[in-house]
Amino acid sequence: MKTISTARAFAGTQGVYSHHSDVLDCDMNFAVFVPPQAKDGPCPVLWYLSGLTCTHANVMDKGEYRRIAAERGVILVCPDTSPRGEAVADEPDNWQMGKGAGFYLDATEEPWSAHFKMESYITHELPALIAAEFPADMGRQGIFGHSMGGHGALTIALKNPERFRSLSAFAPIVSPSTSDWSVPALTKYLGADQAAWRAYDACLLVEDGKRFPEILIDQGTADSFLQTGLKPWLFEEAVKGTEIALTLRMQEGYDHSYYFISTFMADHIHWHADRLA
Amino acid sequence: MKTISTARAFAGTQGVYSHHSDVLDCDMNFAVFVPPQAKDGPCPVLWYLSGLTCTHANVMDKGEYRRIAAERGVILVCPDTSPRGEAVADEPDNWQMGKGAGFYLDATEEPWSAHFKMESYITHELPALIAAEFPADMGRQGIFGHSMGGHGALTIALKNPERFRSLSAFAPIVSPSTSDWSVPALTKYLGADQAAWRAYDACLLVEDGKRFPEILIDQGTADSFLQTGLKPWLFEEAVKGTEIALTLRMQEGYDHSYYFISTFMADHIHWHADRLA
Repeated sequence: MKTISTARAFAGTQGVYSHHSDVLDCDMNFAVFVPPQAKDGPCPVLWYLSGLTCTHANVMDKGEYRRIAAERGVILVCPDTSPRGEAVADEPDNWQMGKGAGFYLDATEEPWSAHFKMESYITHELPALIAAEFPADMGRQGIFGHSMGGHGALTIALKNPERFRSLSAFAPIVSPSTSDWSVPALTKYLGADQAAWRAYDACLLVEDGKRFPEILIDQGTADSFLQTGLKPWLFEEAVKGTEIALTLRMQEGYDHSYYFISTFMADHIHWHADRLA
Repeated sequence: MKTISTARAFAGTQGVYSHHSDVLDCDMNFAVFVPPQAKDGPCPVLWYLSGLTCTHANVMDKGEYRRIAAERGVILVCPDTSPRGEAVADEPDNWQMGKGAGFYLDATEEPWSAHFKMESYITHELPALIAAEFPADMGRQGIFGHSMGGHGALTIALKNPERFRSLSAFAPIVSPSTSDWSVPALTKYLGADQAAWRAYDACLLVEDGKRFPEILIDQGTADSFLQTGLKPWLFEEAVKGTEIALTLRMQEGYDHSYYFISTFMADHIHWHADRLA
């Protein structure tokens, strides 16, 4: 692991790091905020998965998470959204496919399967690095994310409920099998057989019996992607009658941007910190 | 005035606007955050002046001001740092001169004097536009800024103490007449006769009898420009024995970045809001 930069912020440290990922077969950057409480011992880890077109930097710059993470003593890990570099397959004119659009899945179709193994990267390789390099209590992990990253958080937590104590999302893609945003990507990454898609669709995972005790979702009513890409009511429908306690908050007048995310970031970090204490 | 974008944030509205500036003879962008309290009547106005290389966007993205501005009911105005456009003189390879480096002064030397009238723009033209277009109580104004923008805030407030009720700065250039960062720029904008520089140097303005009742300055001890560009102790020296109450806080381990600014943004907005109430 190489340190790209560190800076003091809210009495903690915001760092940017790079490492070679064997799983993704490329070099990757990620951001970690370590709160001041880390000097007294390991802190819980909260994973933030970003949306389409993002890198680690968007939430680091605009997410306004450091104040509350420092107050509550939570480490924030912000990975990139896809493999990177010259060798990685891409559709440069398509923001919903390839670089910046990894969808937190392990691709099985050529040419994508060579590098696009984001599920394995987020659930195995990067946690091992975080555990080795940071003052992290890996027994206390939470996960959240935005949009495509909300999809990542929901699907990864539903498949790994023993690993994560807390789960939330901002404007997540809850039904990528039916969303305009993701059907083309799932087809290319996973093939046309939709049976393979079920492991990467929060609604279908719940239908297939996956569970997580409590989930917080915030969704802006002025989000221009609400009707086409997001449709949180599908997830509300999916969890109905299950033991999943979903808190879905429709936030009047908010859009899909970091103005929305930063407004409710404190609520989400408190939600996680309460469950990671 | 044209609206470039608006978004709901912290129950208020973050907007970006453009207009033609007659004073600068070019089109200019600026950002305004209007807090939710504005629906009940005019709100006080806090001016944030940015540093070298910045536009209105840096503090809008990274400053983390919206939460407290919304809590305290303060309008935040974030102007650009220089005239813009093809016709405007520049030194493209010099980040301390020309575009992004207006130094909040009215240039007198060719070719700069054609457009570089940032003092007039910030103190006359833009306030008139804000008063006309926003729910602003212009009887209650405060001003602050970062680095070159801290210089702007200090010098403008010292010259207009009747207009501003509150003043603060993050890592300001307090002595541009002697700072490595600004001597070349002052020479080009104002000419070699240093008598003309005195109106744009906080230390010299105090020496020349200008006063402001209370000033808050935060300065990071790990700021790599501390010894060359900033030297806040020169201002501490300048105000000694005057009726100016200076609170200079040296913040251990903080650098010159928005990680530093965002950490102490809440303190500064509270400082202003207390005096604008």
